[in-house]
Amino acid sequence: MKLAEMTTVEVDQLSRDVVVVIPTGSLEQHGPHLPLFTDSILATAVSEAVERAIPDKVLLLPTVWMGASAHHQAFAGTVSASMAGYIAAVQDAVRAMTRHHFTKFFLINGHGGNVDPNGVALREIKAENPDLTVGASNYYTFCESEGEKLLRGPLKRIRHACEAETSLMLHVAPHLVRLDKAQDGGLVTSPETSGLILHFDEQTDVGSYGYPSYGTAQVGEALFNAAVTGLVRNLSAIYEGFVLVSRDEG
Amino acid sequence: MKLAEMTTVEVDQLSRDVVVVIPTGSLEQHGPHLPLFTDSILATAVSEAVERAIPDKVLLLPTVWMGASAHHQAFAGTVSASMAGYIAAVQDAVRAMTRHHFTKFFLINGHGGNVDPNGVALREIKAENPDLTVGASNYYTFCESEGEKLLRGPLKRIRHACEAETSLMLHVAPHLVRLDKAQDGGLVTSPETSGLILHFDEQTDVGSYGYPSYGTAQVGEALFNAAVTGLVRNLSAIYEGFVLVSRDEG
Amino acid sequence: MKLAEMTTVEVDQLSRDVVVVIPTGSLEQHGPHLPLFTDSILATAVSEAVERAIPDKVLLLPTVWMGASAHHQAFAGTVSASMAGYIAAVQDAVRAMTRHHFTKFFLINGHGGNVDPNGVALREIKAENPDLTVGASNYYTFCESEGEKLLRGPLKRIRHACEAETSLMLHVAPHLVRLDKAQDGGLVTSPETSGLILHFDEQTDVGSYGYPSYGTAQVGEALFNAAVTGLVRNLSAIYEGFVLVSRDEG
Amino acid sequence: MKLAEMTTVEVDQLSRDVVVVIPTGSLEQHGPHLPLFTDSILATAVSEAVERAIPDKVLLLPTVWMGASAHHQAFAGTVSASMAGYIAAVQDAVRAMTRHHFTKFFLINGHGGNVDPNGVALREIKAENPDLTVGASNYYTFCESEGEKLLRGPLKRIRHACEAETSLMLHVAPHLVRLDKAQDGGLVTSPETSGLILHFDEQTDVGSYGYPSYGTAQVGEALFNAAVTGLVRNLSAIYEGFVLVSRDEG
Amino acid sequence: MKLAEMTTVEVDQLSRDVVVVIPTGSLEQHGPHLPLFTDSILATAVSEAVERAIPDKVLLLPTVWMGASAHHQAFAGTVSASMAGYIAAVQDAVRAMTRHHFTKFFLINGHGGNVDPNGVALREIKAENPDLTVGASNYYTFCESEGEKLLRGPLKRIRHACEAETSLMLHVAPHLVRLDKAQDGGLVTSPETSGLILHFDEQTDVGSYGYPSYGTAQVGEALFNAAVTGLVRNLSAIYEGFVLVSRDEG
Amino acid sequence: MKLAEMTTVEVDQLSRDVVVVIPTGSLEQHGPHLPLFTDSILATAVSEAVERAIPDKVLLLPTVWMGASAHHQAFAGTVSASMAGYIAAVQDAVRAMTRHHFTKFFLINGHGGNVDPNGVALREIKAENPDLTVGASNYYTFCESEGEKLLRGPLKRIRHACEAETSLMLHVAPHLVRLDKAQDGGLVTSPETSGLILHFDEQTDVGSYGYPSYGTAQVGEALFNAAVTGLVRNLSAIYEGFVLVSRDEG
Repeated sequence: MKLAEMTTVEVDQLSRDVVVVIPTGSLEQHGPHLPLFTDSILATAVSEAVERAIPDKVLLLPTVWMGASAHHQAFAGTVSASMAGYIAAVQDAVRAMTRHHFTKFFLINGHGGNVDPNGVALREIKAENPDLTVGASNYYTFCESEGEKLLRGPLKRIRHACEAETSLMLHVAPHLVRLDKAQDGGLVTSPETSGLILHFDEQTDVGSYGYPSYGTAQVGEALFNAAVTGLVRNLSAIYEGFVLVSRDEG
Repeated sequence: MKLAEMTTVEVDQLSRDVVVVIPTGSLEQHGPHLPLFTDSILATAVSEAVERAIPDKVLLLPTVWMGASAHHQAFAGTVSASMAGYIAAVQDAVRAMTRHHFTKFFLINGHGGNVDPNGVALREIKAENPDLTVGASNYYTFCESEGEKLLRGPLKRIRHACEAETSLMLHVAPHLVRLDKAQDGGLVTSPETSGLILHFDEQTDVGSYGYPSYGTAQVGEALFNAAVTGLVRNLSAIYEGFVLVSRDEG
Repeated sequence: MKLAEMTTVEVDQLSRDVVVVIPTGSLEQHGPHLPLFTDSILATAVSEAVERAIPDKVLLLPTVWMGASAHHQAFAGTVSASMAGYIAAVQDAVRAMTRHHFTKFFLINGHGGNVDPNGVALREIKAENPDLTVGASNYYTFCESEGEKLLRGPLKRIRHACEAETSLMLHVAPHLVRLDKAQDGGLVTSPETSGLILHFDEQTDVGSYGYPSYGTAQVGEALFNAAVTGLVRNLSAIYEGFVLVSRDEG
Repeated sequence: MKLAEMTTVEVDQLSRDVVVVIPTGSLEQHGPHLPLFTDSILATAVSEAVERAIPDKVLLLPTVWMGASAHHQAFAGTVSASMAGYIAAVQDAVRAMTRHHFTKFFLINGHGGNVDPNGVALREIKAENPDLTVGASNYYTFCESEGEKLLRGPLKRIRHACEAETSLMLHVAPHLVRLDKAQDGGLVTSPETSGLILHFDEQTDVGSYGYPSYGTAQVGEALFNAAVTGLVRNLSAIYEGFVLVSRDEG
Repeated sequence: MKLAEMTTVEVDQLSRDVVVVIPTGSLEQHGPHLPLFTDSILATAVSEAVERAIPDKVLLLPTVWMGASAHHQAFAGTVSASMAGYIAAVQDAVRAMTRHHFTKFFLINGHGGNVDPNGVALREIKAENPDLTVGASNYYTFCESEGEKLLRGPLKRIRHACEAETSLMLHVAPHLVRLDKAQDGGLVTSPETSGLILHFDEQTDVGSYGYPSYGTAQVGEALFNAAVTGLVRNLSAIYEGFVLVSRDEG
Repeated sequence: MKLAEMTTVEVDQLSRDVVVVIPTGSLEQHGPHLPLFTDSILATAVSEAVERAIPDKVLLLPTVWMGASAHHQAFAGTVSASMAGYIAAVQDAVRAMTRHHFTKFFLINGHGGNVDPNGVALREIKAENPDLTVGASNYYTFCESEGEKLLRGPLKRIRHACEAETSLMLHVAPHLVRLDKAQDGGLVTSPETSGLILHFDEQTDVGSYGYPSYGTAQVGEALFNAAVTGLVRNLSAIYEGFVLVSRDEG
């Protein structure tokens, strides 16, 4: 179900076992070939496909579209939430729904910069109210193995405005892709380092990272389906109510 | 232009004279006949019509859809932002665009509860950066006089989930209106008082206020056009750059 | 009753039906002819007259004199509260009195810049504690119609350091008015615009707006009495406990 | 000079060597015999006497009357600021005046609970702007030695609603003192302890501490004059601009 | 170098190329066999070993020992920082050192719950000051592959109070390990889920997770050395100043 | 008992009558002869000696080492917490332990700049939860009279990096004292003033204040023992549970 389209009377009658799903995206530069709303478009599209697959198990909220994008702020058009503002948006949405007695929440995230504040936001919520079930995952976590198999360019992982995101956009919103403008690129540190937080203007002149020129709608569709399948399985498990059991190391 | 659909390269090339327009709405109960997203749908639809009318003069952002709706929180499904969260959303969007050297901002608001925090948000922005041009208006301010003429029920002003909002929704998104569920109503204090902040569950059992059963798409279209016309005139004046002149009391 | 002059024992014995009244003002420039404390002086004087009229119905607090005056900050002497600081002052006062089991609160405001943060402050209070009765009004709202009749200059509405405020000060604190220094003026945008937040140094060189030179104590007294009469009626209704009834559109 | 009574034009012309003086008080229980506003009344009266003595050296602001009084919150009528709200009030006042290029600030405090937040507030201000001269003192620090000599009851130090405060009020605002209601009392820990923060309802049933029944206007006048004399000397030193010299231990 | 032991004169003379290293730990339950300070002890020990290895390249600060441990709060003795408090601690330390013109910062983290707030803290710092080099890593990230080889129990990954942490403590602070009290355990969800944030009292009755009973000092030493080696390499790269180069996919 | 070294099981079994002791220090310049960690080293050493003296009566937490040191920020190496960050650290520690049902808290402070925020932190805690017993004291308060007797240089009071602190460090951590670098000094205002908040770079070029060159380990030991003795007596009184009794003025 989509909360936005329901009336208060209909919400009142819902089972409180449903998982409240909140897509989180961004409005940030995606190179010369993808629109600023790419992350929001993809997180929304995946979430809506999940909702279509299991409409009775999830209650979909509108997308929190203003992500934590300070690392892209050097590129024109990036609209980054402050950390406090982003965290408040996620928490306000969750707290409002707990007031109506919903207890299960899951963020479907489409933007890497949201991972840390999503964690902070949900950990605070869980500390306040330990009986809630809360979680978050990047949609693209569920298509990483598919990506390793299908991506044609040299970079097999999913990065920013890369072959994978370009492919997904060619599947979901092809009219917004300027494929002829795509530029491959992206720098790494030498010597190799671990753990550094770099801004995108340090890593690329054009804003994309990887090999968008290899993007195809066909690969995008496969990645998209993998994400939806994985999320449907995960949310169904949360909806049905998991139990905690001993690890079986056997 | 719609920022969400543009690339960073395109934004880079824009004139900084354009007015950055941010629609502000809500996700809150609208009685048994209108969807929770009503305010966001209407603010967005009006803003998009304005953008279509004067695309070179405005740069439209996505809608800040989580409004300040605590006065509706007793009704299931209402997702209210905290005041701090709402104000942060507006300010983050404005501050991000000032980083890219835009200087003119206007909020097109669709929800009464946002009026006070919009004022606080913009006054703080203006105090930080007095050279900016900032403003906000309810879209329905521009159709009030039309409403006085056209509304058929006993209440001639625009209230919550009333004849006017129902008419606008019948024009903009008729598939989301459950007109057969509409209930007229709404209470006032006796004796009459001024200045009180009442919650909606104090004023109405069903969540709507006024005479939604009188709503028609035809009236909705007239109100919609009045709002668009008024906003186009206002934003064009801001785009062109007004001057300050003596009041002519003659 | 005036809280400041009472002892804790006396407060303990009060009826909790009384309306706690908090005047809100400012310390900000009022042109070359009025003192910086004008808004606080007038809000206080009106509130004290209300308290004298219905002493058993209201419990008057000292004036929150540091208003939200950033739009006057370019003029020397203006002492503006931050929005957060102003909102905290109002909320702290209300919350402290709810701890002592008072439940009815009304702000008598004398400064336009406080309107938005008063709304935010009280809406948050009401959301936390929906059983409270809270409200706010500008004292000058109650003398607007009187002003339209009585004001002699070309501007018939009440603005900043204008004929009306000057007249009120000539009635309340004539020794603080430098009438010979008064300058008429004040600019408007051309073309006309709606919703913009302008700073006072954009609208006037001298800090006053309108026609203070027309001010008279006689008009001031009439405006003052109208404000007191309106507020007495409003606060009496709140004290007695209003009920909510159907609107009578008949 | 009193800022409240001045016009913006007059402030504009002031020397920036003057010391901006901000009285800080409270609205809190003072036992059965003194009004809630006692601390604010006394801090204000002392500050005004200082201003009358050296009008060209100080610029007096209105009193920050809502103090940090949580330790009195169990007694009806106490209106305590939150720590954040109180600190914001002090800082907002100082920051606003630095905007107008004043550089010397001194708080004349009348309430023990304000000491810690005054320190925090001014230390933050000084850290932001190390070139400012900032300071604070309780007015009663300057009459402690006089108190040791003159107080007639067994307690020779200045405490809450005690002989000294009662005497000061009998000097400054005798019409607000209910001397016949005064009750002597106040508890101490056994065994003796150091550093504990106790609330007043732990230390006294009636809210006063010490021997108010011994209060006289004559002693009050002597204490008052000692406070004014000490503050005049201190503020004159700040006004004239002290230098830093070696300690002379000889 | 260890900042705590240096004088201000010595710091003044340091090269600003050194990497400021801040260990981050926790004070939280670690089951019946490990002390509450385990994470802080280990992060500190690793960091001090790194400092001993490359003393001229790093400037070691004391450990931020109060971690974000709300997920352990159900167990007695856990002292969790609030998210805001933890983030402030990290940011205050970094900002203070930027005031002294240091530009390279790295957090050596010993507690999983700090990962998200470390990210938020550093991303805000980097957004404010994009010229800084900032990063963070868990020390145990650098011994994960060693763990997969050496750990003897069924769980080959590093979890809370598990075989790996127990082994490390047996190497670093054996007198604080109550190995005879160790209990193996830890639950997983069935069906399997991804992305949920569970509190430790949901996953284990005793507070440890995995197979601490398998812990040995020998394995601990190997893990410890792997962590130190990895961090020395990483910090040396940051000290020497990396460059950004094209990815070599060849 | 030292919380850091205990397991959760052991904490669970503790009496809740113990006083939770939190040392508070700083990492700030202490002139050319003392290490930056001086205040933290001393507060920790005193607190640990107290814990050794009465282990069953106190539960010692690790030291909050990042103090409020903005007044030293001009000297290299000073790492000052923000006021908000420092207050959060103290409050988070206390609140975490109240969750585990401890009710008595005492801060042993080693840094003058922490006095005001310690007061603010604890006053807020006490206001939230009036049943708690909370307090704070500088350890050096308990050796002031000993200092007046024993200090050999011209300054008999305990100041920053002075003879007393130097003596204490020669007793506690002689290997960290560069006594040959010590410089006597420190300026005062002329004319004398009261209540000003001065930064250390205004009062001394070298960062120390007073006569460190007179410092001896022997005097340090006597001061140390006086501090421990005083704190043991105070904490024992709090542990045993004081009562409130009438002041005996006889």
